[in-house]
Formats: sequence, C-alpha cells, structure tokens
Amino acid sequence: MTTTTASHSPTPVTVLGLGAMGSAIARTFLDRGHPVTVWNRTAEKAAPLAEAGAATAETAAEAAAASPLVVVCLLDHEAVDAVLADVGGAVGGKVLVNLTSDSPAQARTTERWAAEHGAEYIDGGIMADPPDLGTSHAHFSFSGSRAAFEAHEPTLMELGNGTYYGEDAGLASVEFMAQVGTAYELLLGFLHTLRLVKLEGADPAEFADRVADSIAASYPPLLRGIGKAVRDGEFPPDMGPLSVQAALMDDLIDHRRANGVDAARMVEVKRLMDRRIADGHGDEGFSGLFPLLGEGS
Amino acid sequence: MTTTTASHSPTPVTVLGLGAMGSAIARTFLDRGHPVTVWNRTAEKAAPLAEAGAATAETAAEAAAASPLVVVCLLDHEAVDAVLADVGGAVGGKVLVNLTSDSPAQARTTERWAAEHGAEYIDGGIMADPPDLGTSHAHFSFSGSRAAFEAHEPTLMELGNGTYYGEDAGLASVEFMAQVGTAYELLLGFLHTLRLVKLEGADPAEFADRVADSIAASYPPLLRGIGKAVRDGEFPPDMGPLSVQAALMDDLIDHRRANGVDAARMVEVKRLMDRRIADGHGDEGFSGLFPLLGEGS
Repeated sequence: MTTTTASHSPTPVTVLGLGAMGSAIARTFLDRGHPVTVWNRTAEKAAPLAEAGAATAETAAEAAAASPLVVVCLLDHEAVDAVLADVGGAVGGKVLVNLTSDSPAQARTTERWAAEHGAEYIDGGIMADPPDLGTSHAHFSFSGSRAAFEAHEPTLMELGNGTYYGEDAGLASVEFMAQVGTAYELLLGFLHTLRLVKLEGADPAEFADRVADSIAASYPPLLRGIGKAVRDGEFPPDMGPLSVQAALMDDLIDHRRANGVDAARMVEVKRLMDRRIADGHGDEGFSGLFPLLGEGS
Repeated sequence: MTTTTASHSPTPVTVLGLGAMGSAIARTFLDRGHPVTVWNRTAEKAAPLAEAGAATAETAAEAAAASPLVVVCLLDHEAVDAVLADVGGAVGGKVLVNLTSDSPAQARTTERWAAEHGAEYIDGGIMADPPDLGTSHAHFSFSGSRAAFEAHEPTLMELGNGTYYGEDAGLASVEFMAQVGTAYELLLGFLHTLRLVKLEGADPAEFADRVADSIAASYPPLLRGIGKAVRDGEFPPDMGPLSVQAALMDDLIDHRRANGVDAARMVEVKRLMDRRIADGHGDEGFSGLFPLLGEGS
C-alpha cells in the first residue's frame, strides 16, 4: 500500500509572448512543475521551451484555451491589443495576467477588454532582469481582481516577490511609474549636486558615501512623515518651519549659480516656500508646499 | 598627602555673538568647565551667561584677547565682517572658529582676513537646533587649519558630533550646501510624485512607506556607485544600460503629463539620455549623464 501526501496539482499556465522575459516566465513555471502552453508570433522562439516540456499552440486563441491562467508578456501595449484581438472569446472564464509594461490608463483599458470577454484581469509590473526570475531578486507589482489574485497567488509568487496594490488594475503601473520616477528625481538632483561638490574641490565619492549613510538613517522617517502629511492634509514642521527653511534657499541658489550648477529645483522650492509663507503658513513644514503643486505660478 | 590625576585644564573659550545658537554654545562650554568669555553687540544678552559664570567683555576685541580659542556665531557673513573689523589684531596668535552660516566663498574670505591678522582659521557649519547642543544630535562640519582643528578637537567635540573635511576653509560650507541641496532635490521630486500617486487613487502614506523602505535598502549602494563613477570618470551600467533606461522615460513623461504633474526632471533625464546614447555611450549607466551636465542644451 502506498501513501500520497495531500497536494494540489500545479496550475496549468499559458504564456503568450516569448521574448527574453516571456521565455524566462515560461521556463520558471516549467521548472516548478506546472503544465505550460506557449505561443509566440514567430514560432521558432517556442522551440527551446518545447524541448524543455512545454506544449506549443498554433494560435494565441488555442494557447489561451489550454489553461485557466493566461500570462501575457509582450513588447508593449500595442502588441497586447493585437494579440488579444486574435485571442477573443477564448479567454472567457480564464484569469488574464498582463505583465507587459504599460501605463495605468492602458492597464484599465485592457481590464475593460477582459471584462467584455468574460475574463478576470490582473495587471502586473516586473522590476527584474530575466535571469532573476524565480528568485527573491525579482519584484512584481500586481493589481486588479482580488479574487483572481488570491486564487492564483501561489502560482504568481513562484516568479519572485510580489505585492498586490488593489482592485484598480492601474495601481500596479502607478506604483511602478511613481517608484521609478522618485528614483530619477533623486538621482538627477544628486548628479547635479555631485557636480557642485566636484567643482568646489571635494571628493564626489566620499560625499556620495556620506549621503548614502545619511539617506539610510535620516530620510526614511522624513519621507514617511511627508506621505502621512499629504494624506491627512496637515503639515507639521517636518524640517523646521518654512519661515526658517526659506531663509536658507537663497544661499543654496546663489551657491549653485556661482558655480554654474543647475538650480532649477532650488528656485522652485524657494518660490513655493515664499508663496506658502505669504499665505500665512510659515509655521508648516516642507510638506506644506504640497497644496501649491499643480497650481502653476 | 593627596594625589591628583593628570589632566589638562579645560581650554578658555571666547564666544562672540549671543543669539540662540551662540548662547547655547557658551552655555555648553560653561557646563563642561571651560572658562568662558562672552560678548554681544547688545549687552543684555550676556546677563544670563554672566550669572552662570561667564566673564563679560566691553568690546569684541577685549573678549577675543581673553582666550586662545575664539568662537564666532552671528546672524550672517555681513555681521561677521563688522565684528571682525572691531576685533582686528586682538585675534593675533589665536584660533578663530567661525560657526556663522556662510557660503564657501565667504568662508574663504574670512580665512584670508584671519591670516592677515595672524590667526589660524576654522570654518564650521551647524546642523542642529540650539537645545541639541552638547548632545550627539548636534552635527558640526569643520574645515580649515588642520593643526588648529587637531589642537582644539576635544573642545570643539563637546558641542556635538563633528567631522573635519579638509584644509580648504570652504569645504565645511560645501558639505552643508550639498547635503541640504540633495535633500531638497529629493523632497520636491518626491512631493510631485506623491501628487501623481494621489491623483491616481493610491494612498500617499502607504506609498511613502514603501519608498522609505526602498530608499533605506536599495539607494545607498546605488548612490555610492554613482559617486565613485563620477570621481573615476568611468560609468558602468548602474541601473542597466542607458539604451534600456531611456525606453522607459517617455512612459514616465506621458504619465505625468496626462495627470498634469510636473515632468521637468523626467524630460531633462530623457534629453540627457538621448544625447549620451547619440554620442555612442548607450552601454553606460545613469552616471554616464554626468559629463553632459553644465553643457547647456
């Protein structure tokens, strides 16, 4: 007599699109024992996966029909539109997971298409290189149908670390756009500041080390406080009152200009501080500038 | 018979300028047992310190003559110029420590004045509120005469944590300007991004928490790498090659513009990336934009 452990069979998965990322996704699911069906517009990309045990399909519709979970990973939103037009009703009753890089608006458009074709929809963003897939270095953002996400969470989490941001399918893309945007805001400002440091005869690498230490220690509570202030619409004096902070901005602007270094953000900060103080809010902190953003000047 | 432990007498200190910060400096030195001589343009500010044991002087020159270490903490550089004009040769043979907020150029000007009057010069910046003085929460930056700094380091360190940046008297101010500038670059970009997040229906406080976690974990090594790249003039693909990063920038710009959110830095990043790629450097990382800064466009 043999005993078997109670277990669910791995969910069959279809992968549409076999570029570097799509192929890595299909291979990760194969490695974890899922039945995998693959399709690509140019069929030769499917060959290595077929050798590794994947089923291949002649059309995207045939591939979609083969599994309850259909993962799409294509070049861009236009490619998604084209492939889904071919898939059509074959996605009915399935869960469609779109890992193609897209905007929040595009994610919401694809969600509507899925609803019209009887599918549940999950949008996802990938912050990883293909070789990292299946490891903790691969980060995924998901949003859309909560029920579908919870049903397939164990399968999706085999790709890496994932976070679910809510029912609005656009939220995964919002998170990606905002995280990356924050990074470029910081990094370009930092690059201009390194120029200032270098022109003044200090060592850019040593300065960067000190900023790195300071960022790790001091910035997280500051950023959390600003996020909370923006959510609540109450702006405590996070870095001291604006009236005190503003007094420093002219020095920063003058110093950058004297060195020919970009002062655009410093000028903007000063202009916003002056307006907020003139409006009678000089006792607020930096977050008090938030209500002025988007008003023009 | 009594025994005495070998010890140095605390260095006598003169403090010129008794605003909130100057008074806190004088009081900290008094508390640690230093003979302290104080002077302020309006004499009544000296009264509480005199009660606490400080000697008072009628003129700035008389005060400066009283101690080997003369600390100046005034409103601004113009006030420093005025007071030092009164002090004149009385500072000869002393160490002059100027903790007044000033620019690197102003620090270097004061250093020249000190040299002309036979004094050694240390410039310093204070990153602290007056109540924090004498605690580890008070951070000081120092630059200027290394010999003078090393001779008086134990005394100066009684004010808080201090770092010495080098012989160029302007370096303490450079550090201060660059650290604060980095902060405002990041924070204003973050505030614009919070607006994007909020307009898209995500929770700004929860987003800020995730950015805070990410900044603590991922950014320090990235910033160190960029600082090293700028110092060495070699630009490895820190966040992936520019050719790949650039493909994302149009999405970021379009998304911000669609929401009416400031895209100025994203546009600048894209323009710089396009130029660097056109110059044949698409395999470099973000730090490869550095050589283009300051060239105009």
